[in-house]
Amino acid sequence: MAGEVNKGLEGVVVADSTICLIQGMKGKLSYRGYDIKDLAEKCCFEEVTYLLLYEKLPNAKELAKFKQELIKRRHIPDHVVEMMKTFAKKMNSTEALRSTVSALSDDEPDPRDVNIDHQLDVAISLTAKFPTIVAHYYRLKHKMKLVKPNPKLGHAANFLYMLTGNIPDEISERAMDMDFVLHAEHGFNASTFGVRVTVSTLSDMYSAMTTGIGVLKGPLHGGAAQEVMQMLEEIGWAKNVEAYVKKILAKHGRVMGYGHRIYKTYDPRAKVLKKMAKEFSKKKNNMRWFEIGEKLEEVMAREKNLYPNVDFYSAIVYHHLGLPLDLDTPIFAIARITGWSAHAIAQYKDNRLIRPIENYIGPTNLKFVPLEKR
Amino acid sequence: MAGEVNKGLEGVVVADSTICLIQGMKGKLSYRGYDIKDLAEKCCFEEVTYLLLYEKLPNAKELAKFKQELIKRRHIPDHVVEMMKTFAKKMNSTEALRSTVSALSDDEPDPRDVNIDHQLDVAISLTAKFPTIVAHYYRLKHKMKLVKPNPKLGHAANFLYMLTGNIPDEISERAMDMDFVLHAEHGFNASTFGVRVTVSTLSDMYSAMTTGIGVLKGPLHGGAAQEVMQMLEEIGWAKNVEAYVKKILAKHGRVMGYGHRIYKTYDPRAKVLKKMAKEFSKKKNNMRWFEIGEKLEEVMAREKNLYPNVDFYSAIVYHHLGLPLDLDTPIFAIARITGWSAHAIAQYKDNRLIRPIENYIGPTNLKFVPLEKR
Repeated sequence: MAGEVNKGLEGVVVADSTICLIQGMKGKLSYRGYDIKDLAEKCCFEEVTYLLLYEKLPNAKELAKFKQELIKRRHIPDHVVEMMKTFAKKMNSTEALRSTVSALSDDEPDPRDVNIDHQLDVAISLTAKFPTIVAHYYRLKHKMKLVKPNPKLGHAANFLYMLTGNIPDEISERAMDMDFVLHAEHGFNASTFGVRVTVSTLSDMYSAMTTGIGVLKGPLHGGAAQEVMQMLEEIGWAKNVEAYVKKILAKHGRVMGYGHRIYKTYDPRAKVLKKMAKEFSKKKNNMRWFEIGEKLEEVMAREKNLYPNVDFYSAIVYHHLGLPLDLDTPIFAIARITGWSAHAIAQYKDNRLIRPIENYIGPTNLKFVPLEKR
Repeated sequence: MAGEVNKGLEGVVVADSTICLIQGMKGKLSYRGYDIKDLAEKCCFEEVTYLLLYEKLPNAKELAKFKQELIKRRHIPDHVVEMMKTFAKKMNSTEALRSTVSALSDDEPDPRDVNIDHQLDVAISLTAKFPTIVAHYYRLKHKMKLVKPNPKLGHAANFLYMLTGNIPDEISERAMDMDFVLHAEHGFNASTFGVRVTVSTLSDMYSAMTTGIGVLKGPLHGGAAQEVMQMLEEIGWAKNVEAYVKKILAKHGRVMGYGHRIYKTYDPRAKVLKKMAKEFSKKKNNMRWFEIGEKLEEVMAREKNLYPNVDFYSAIVYHHLGLPLDLDTPIFAIARITGWSAHAIAQYKDNRLIRPIENYIGPTNLKFVPLEKR
């Protein structure tokens, strides 16, 4: 068979795209042509979602309307909340999100002529519902009363409110919002590619998002914030960093939250989030984790020429937000559904069934032996 | 960015494989080195599942043990049957299968060190449960009493029994079994590839199978038996075939169940199933659909050099089996989970995160304009 085996599809170009540009060597990332730093520091998540879905930044009127669209769709129907009670008893957080999203679908058509408006509608509905699902799961699991969505709050603040029952302070809202913007989109990562493979048979948006969550669940993909925080706790204090890194490198171990398959220099998302982590740490009068982070950067740059990725400073921000770390993957999904949706729409608009091939290296022409003679 | 855009990944080799060899130009298909004709005519589905999972044909003792393993796991837990009642009310058959499979998972770990035995265990459990899920869905939807699995019956016969409430006759059992064998595996088709993308993050087997079902749901993938049967009914009788094909070709339409992206000659699965369809049609004293099929073959070969694919004769077989045609995609899944599982295991054993790239053609360096100035 023709061609070399490329197990990871590294460097294989599977689509033209206008969604995001990742410049790994330069450490640059932009969505629809806008630098990630501007978007993270100057836009709310709803604005960025609009940009990714509609290919332009909204004006004030468009944004207000779009926010209302999202607010209207935050509610989870009662029959699905009933199922979530069982999910919360039996499942981890990512399984519960995957199962709930699948359960929300309702005789979804798969026509050969795709209705893009309908697909967008489902994408917006699920984008609105993801925070509700994650917050409900958490409160059901811990036998707490469910908190209804608050239509006065934006996407990020409302998520924190539904999770904790308290309206978040200004910096918490800003940090959560920024974290969502930074995680919204990142090209043909495995979960997004899984979404596009699903759409490529002209399957529906619920199926596509269910796939996205299932792919994101794996430890080689998303949400290493939990592992980063565990590492920070193990290190304990900045003075222990040198010894810790030496120990890990001696046994060829991994320093969590470091390095990235694409960024060979500083992850631009980590750069923005580091600033936020510093501000947040000061506000909370707790520089302990941030100081470990700064020292770790110094040592890892010197020893391995590796830089923190977006997960690293997410961990510190989540810690200050008081987020339960076993929610790190579903929180990633709350943000990434935006990118998944933009890619799904792009795939519907210019589709080709995705079907690579294998290089067969097994036996051929084996003689069949009937059961009684084996 | 390097490389040409290849939207369908045609000809891109993504893995070495020992699972199945498709020789599109020769019209040959083999699983693990054995010709599909031998397997379909001389093996039961359980035997072929064993072959795909364990890389060898079982002897009598191994097969008996494996059948028992499957029989033991056919049961669906009560709390999931409860959810299925809601699914049956609201969802189509493929959504219900996808949601039920996701709901069966139970705090499934995603360790960086994968336990292959555990993954195989889940694969076997789900293989055993798929027919129960599909049959339960159908009976719940039509408000019929659920039929418990019958441990005396094999995989195919038990499915028909749970669906209809009656123990099938010999030819029905044989036809269902053969159909499952023929649909069990087919290389890197989109659903199988979706399964492998999911596994490539080291996500779990439930996530992988949930993805598989979601990808299979799309009309460009699997289970066109329903559309084929609708076409046969529209044609009505063999004498109308010439006129029907002329009409369709004049408006550049599709003749359902014809042609295949890989087979450029006769689909070897269709060849085996055609023989079965003929035998079954005779037995049922109803040659009407088969005669249309034969005439259609003649006209399509002459006019378009196209041959029937596996879906074509599946439709006639399903008709004689009395299968509800809106179950065609989940029935495909009952068979294909075997191939999905074999590919998932292969991916776990020799994994690399699957992450292709895009060719960015959008705007760059756009100047950020604040909301109030847009």
